[in-house]
Amino acid sequence: MNDIEIFGNTQRGLEFIRETKQKRFSLSLVISYTATSEIPGITIAGEHPELIKFTGPADAEFIHYGYCKSISVIPMTPDGKPTPALLTKSALEAASIPSVAINAGSKVSPKLPFIDMNLDYGKNIKKEPAQNIDQVGKAVEYGRIIGRFLGASTDCLIIGESIPGGTTTALGVLEGFGIKGLVSSSMPHNPTELKIQVVREAIERLGSNDPFEVVAQLGDPMIPTVAGMLSTASEVSKVMLAGGTQMAAVLCFAKSLGFDGKNTAIGTTSYVVEDKSANLIDTISHILDVPILAAKLKLAKSQIAGLRAYSEGFVKEGAGAGGASIACMLKTGIDADGLLHSAESEYVKSLDCD
Amino acid sequence: MNDIEIFGNTQRGLEFIRETKQKRFSLSLVISYTATSEIPGITIAGEHPELIKFTGPADAEFIHYGYCKSISVIPMTPDGKPTPALLTKSALEAASIPSVAINAGSKVSPKLPFIDMNLDYGKNIKKEPAQNIDQVGKAVEYGRIIGRFLGASTDCLIIGESIPGGTTTALGVLEGFGIKGLVSSSMPHNPTELKIQVVREAIERLGSNDPFEVVAQLGDPMIPTVAGMLSTASEVSKVMLAGGTQMAAVLCFAKSLGFDGKNTAIGTTSYVVEDKSANLIDTISHILDVPILAAKLKLAKSQIAGLRAYSEGFVKEGAGAGGASIACMLKTGIDADGLLHSAESEYVKSLDCD
Repeated sequence: MNDIEIFGNTQRGLEFIRETKQKRFSLSLVISYTATSEIPGITIAGEHPELIKFTGPADAEFIHYGYCKSISVIPMTPDGKPTPALLTKSALEAASIPSVAINAGSKVSPKLPFIDMNLDYGKNIKKEPAQNIDQVGKAVEYGRIIGRFLGASTDCLIIGESIPGGTTTALGVLEGFGIKGLVSSSMPHNPTELKIQVVREAIERLGSNDPFEVVAQLGDPMIPTVAGMLSTASEVSKVMLAGGTQMAAVLCFAKSLGFDGKNTAIGTTSYVVEDKSANLIDTISHILDVPILAAKLKLAKSQIAGLRAYSEGFVKEGAGAGGASIACMLKTGIDADGLLHSAESEYVKSLDCD
Repeated sequence: MNDIEIFGNTQRGLEFIRETKQKRFSLSLVISYTATSEIPGITIAGEHPELIKFTGPADAEFIHYGYCKSISVIPMTPDGKPTPALLTKSALEAASIPSVAINAGSKVSPKLPFIDMNLDYGKNIKKEPAQNIDQVGKAVEYGRIIGRFLGASTDCLIIGESIPGGTTTALGVLEGFGIKGLVSSSMPHNPTELKIQVVREAIERLGSNDPFEVVAQLGDPMIPTVAGMLSTASEVSKVMLAGGTQMAAVLCFAKSLGFDGKNTAIGTTSYVVEDKSANLIDTISHILDVPILAAKLKLAKSQIAGLRAYSEGFVKEGAGAGGASIACMLKTGIDADGLLHSAESEYVKSLDCD
């Protein structure tokens, strides 16, 4: 496993790797929406502002079909940087890892069968509470039910997310819980100032530091859903939280519900870990003693400019890409060169479908 | 496994038992609706006509929570015969078998997270086509996607159904495919004449014997959904179709799509197999060479009149009860006496919750 780096508690990281090597994995992609993403300049997700709401559904569709149904092309920036769902898809395919989409407040339903949490999408936290307390409670309860099912159905449940604007709500929740840590971004010049400004305005509404109030005011529907899933799935299987600082926000909330980090690792890409503006490792260490596994992807070596861009600070992670890459390596023994090859083939295939 | 009887191909039945003993099981309950159920006298499901549409959701909720959320009491006939979901719940619980609900055209959404197929409910086949051909195609396609995921997540996928009025649409599909066989009923005096009359009227609309046309005209959304699930799940795991003649209709349609019976068994209760008016074994034998496993339940011995009623010709099966009972015996070694004990406890618990 030379292409997986361990950060945080090395001992626990090695244990996680040993106990999941060659085992069964499955991936659940939690798609959601926060109207916070509509603040100009806050996210690169979606080629055009009116397409932002299709990001989650399109990621879910891409992972299933290898192309998108809700929009005519793969979610891509104007200059051809594809969604990280492409990395997720190619890694899952190379390792025959099954996946399922979970709709936790997406504004648009994906065009495939999905697990429905029956949640509203999150409001713009700059202007108003993201969601009411009851919805947070329901997301946790429904998350617990589905986490129990999915955890019992695998040896290691990978939980990824796709929610444009989600790093800002993650920052909000982290700040609300008193964790100082900057968040990662899909853009190389992280619009940190803008995000901090949004969170500062939102946090003024905070009436108490009750965990449900924090997530209701500052979060999004993905965070309590994944926290609920984590709490039950980790009782019966390993759980890999696939993502960067958004999963830090999930851990923070889960901890407030009594979760102790059992059977859990963060799975991400080295690009997120290396992101100076985010400092994921430090942030996680202030929350819970869970190991961080990072896939050392070799996208810098790619023939394809859109894939090289990941290594240059764009996109970095999302849609479970890091976790799926790690799982692929753990299950099959494929290395980062093999993953790159699969991703390039998938990229070429996706262009053919246009 | 003294309390599991094998009918049909004994050799294959023994193989199925050997290969699933002590293995992982999971159950998916496909809930659906056909307006055919609104024809007076056709079904006993639901205490009152206006409650029929809650039957599927209430069964799904009962299996998850041990009580129902959409209605205030467990679905029960006026004189206290409970839904077979009670048997399903107690068997799953006794064996720690995870379950998930699939909404394939239920008129009402259940109050729990579920896999959504985004299908319309079926129309009354006495009056009009059940669904259009496109919906049948979509149900198969979505079924295939979800069957692939669920099959890859277990050693044996149990597929149950809850669709009031579904035996009439099953009869329609069987007749449409040229299989003569009467269908089982939730009532001791099977209203066979009424069902045959409904099917006779519906079959007059049939323009061709194209399988999709047959299911569109005479079926319901459950049948193509389960046929799709079966076709992919059986590629990677064992599949137990939990039900009586409704699963015969599924097999019939799946066969027309190229399914050969691989890795599949019917799992039901001895009450269905013994139902003279249905003749399940003979019907199945005319379709595909799949073994039929029947749980020899001992409900006649119960202290509780509502449970004894099953052995007297009421209810008999539904909501995956037979399949879940067999799976519980296979996974844990519990016998029919143990199952009865669990069901009685569950019954008493469910009354406490009222």
